[in-house]
Amino acid sequence: MRIALDAMGGDHAPGPIVTGAVEAVRDRSDLTVVLVGDQGRIEAELAAHEVDRDRLPIVHASEIIGMGDKPVEALRKKRDNSISRCWGLMASGEVNAVVSAGHTGAMVASALMNAKMFLPGVRRPGIAAIFPSHQGPIVIIDVGANMNAKAEDLYQYGIMGSIYAENVLGISEPKIGLMNVGSEEDKGNELTRTTRTLFQNGPHAGRFVGNIEGRDIYEGNARVIVCEGFVGNVLLKSGEGAVEFLFSALKQELSKLLPAIGPEASHKLAASFKELKTRFEYQEFGGGPLLGLRGACIICHGSSGARAIRNALRVAGTMAEDRVNEQFASQLKAALDVLPGA
Amino acid sequence: MRIALDAMGGDHAPGPIVTGAVEAVRDRSDLTVVLVGDQGRIEAELAAHEVDRDRLPIVHASEIIGMGDKPVEALRKKRDNSISRCWGLMASGEVNAVVSAGHTGAMVASALMNAKMFLPGVRRPGIAAIFPSHQGPIVIIDVGANMNAKAEDLYQYGIMGSIYAENVLGISEPKIGLMNVGSEEDKGNELTRTTRTLFQNGPHAGRFVGNIEGRDIYEGNARVIVCEGFVGNVLLKSGEGAVEFLFSALKQELSKLLPAIGPEASHKLAASFKELKTRFEYQEFGGGPLLGLRGACIICHGSSGARAIRNALRVAGTMAEDRVNEQFASQLKAALDVLPGA
Repeated sequence: MRIALDAMGGDHAPGPIVTGAVEAVRDRSDLTVVLVGDQGRIEAELAAHEVDRDRLPIVHASEIIGMGDKPVEALRKKRDNSISRCWGLMASGEVNAVVSAGHTGAMVASALMNAKMFLPGVRRPGIAAIFPSHQGPIVIIDVGANMNAKAEDLYQYGIMGSIYAENVLGISEPKIGLMNVGSEEDKGNELTRTTRTLFQNGPHAGRFVGNIEGRDIYEGNARVIVCEGFVGNVLLKSGEGAVEFLFSALKQELSKLLPAIGPEASHKLAASFKELKTRFEYQEFGGGPLLGLRGACIICHGSSGARAIRNALRVAGTMAEDRVNEQFASQLKAALDVLPGA
Repeated sequence: MRIALDAMGGDHAPGPIVTGAVEAVRDRSDLTVVLVGDQGRIEAELAAHEVDRDRLPIVHASEIIGMGDKPVEALRKKRDNSISRCWGLMASGEVNAVVSAGHTGAMVASALMNAKMFLPGVRRPGIAAIFPSHQGPIVIIDVGANMNAKAEDLYQYGIMGSIYAENVLGISEPKIGLMNVGSEEDKGNELTRTTRTLFQNGPHAGRFVGNIEGRDIYEGNARVIVCEGFVGNVLLKSGEGAVEFLFSALKQELSKLLPAIGPEASHKLAASFKELKTRFEYQEFGGGPLLGLRGACIICHGSSGARAIRNALRVAGTMAEDRVNEQFASQLKAALDVLPGA
């Protein structure tokens, strides 16, 4: 298993990115992580670790796409950037997967530029995000790859999300729901009504649980929730914002109480909160998969630390395994055959 | 000031609804609350309170639109329902405002049926929700009244939201932001790009701060955030879901710690959390205003208790005051004159 890792992507790159790669190759003995980016800076980071350098080769890229860059423009102007180099390795078959905590827009735009890399029948890849729920992790797709989704796109996202949930997250026959504004059949807009019909008439009809409202997401009754990219992006980022806001308010409240609680219990309380906050940071899954490609791709949060990168490499490795690729090919074909015009 | 209150609307109606009305007329000496609904049941609730019955007249309505009813169908079949009766009182000028914790869809559908009740120039009323932020309350509009919004609708929502923020929430010259998937100008879809242009060329251009991403909502740098109704509805309900999920996880964590903390500190901790949770329940503002009508309307959460209803009646009273109505009329006119085709 070979994975290209954008060593320059992320708020704190390349330090924690390289550390995550070092840990990942220790976790899995058949893994090689190709570190893509500034050779000198990567070498300097690697020097701090005792590691088999054959399993962490470097592919030099002289440019970096910054978080403030406009993706399409930057991809055109900065030809030798680390993101494009990663996708180049994927296109030429040198790696089975790509992982980056860099510019999400540039990652997606770069992937979309080469339709030959799409799985057969896929109209447009979508980004999934992993949310927590009372039943365990759930997949929400699309969270921002596609700003002009048609019902056929949403239908494909549901199928791909469910293959991911089953084969990577280990959820048996995951239920699929449609993000909507109410539970009744005719709720929402033209897009949701058409999408609903596609699911009801497709081979996954038995797993389709219909509309999911915002407040029901965390119940986990649907383990895959399909939504249009704009809605998914707002959902993902506003969830992060709400959790941050709540924790900052909690911190304030707790600081008032700590004197009354005593040092030992205060310490336990602080540790317990830290653990809880981590649960919401999705670091367990390292980031969100870009689904619909030949080969695996995980897009990590810009603030990813070594732990998130290590987990992303683990998940990308699972996603790129032959058996998962076979599932994508066969389940997608069965599901896409029912689409109008297929 | 006369306000029609849907006494039958809400999960626990009519008990806490009537109690909220009793408290509201005590708060404000020039207020009359017209209780609309089943006369017998309302009388029974009123019997428990010592109150000046002249200030709490009853208008009988024999039917109730249930939470599971389809709004348009229910409004047609259940002619004598409490929601339609409330709007009837508004249309005939017998009340200045309507408050309900009943079926949101039916409330909006009933209001939209009579375009004569729209403020001049308003294309379609929108529902605002009040969120907390680091800078204080913010207005998010539309959260579900309009599933087919055009850029002109979103522009109007921004103007109306800012009049509300200024005159009802007391925020001086509130900044207006556009919900989007990134901070760059060209982010999003056709709808957001066109809306942006309208704001940049309108009389509120100086207050327009451009795109707001999901994670920035709670910063409060925009006190009015404009979004399409589907997006706003998901934002509102998923925020509620996230807070509930987080608090249930917190409760679990805390129950493990309580023995180590001791009974007195435990008690303080529990009280502190309860207070914090309340801050997220928006009860302070009673509910979301439906903006764009001649006269005020507050739509409350189905789970509203007496406190939420009391606050909603207070806010509706402020909203229905002459000076606020004049602001709506004059600021809206200035803003709408710049719309293409105006």
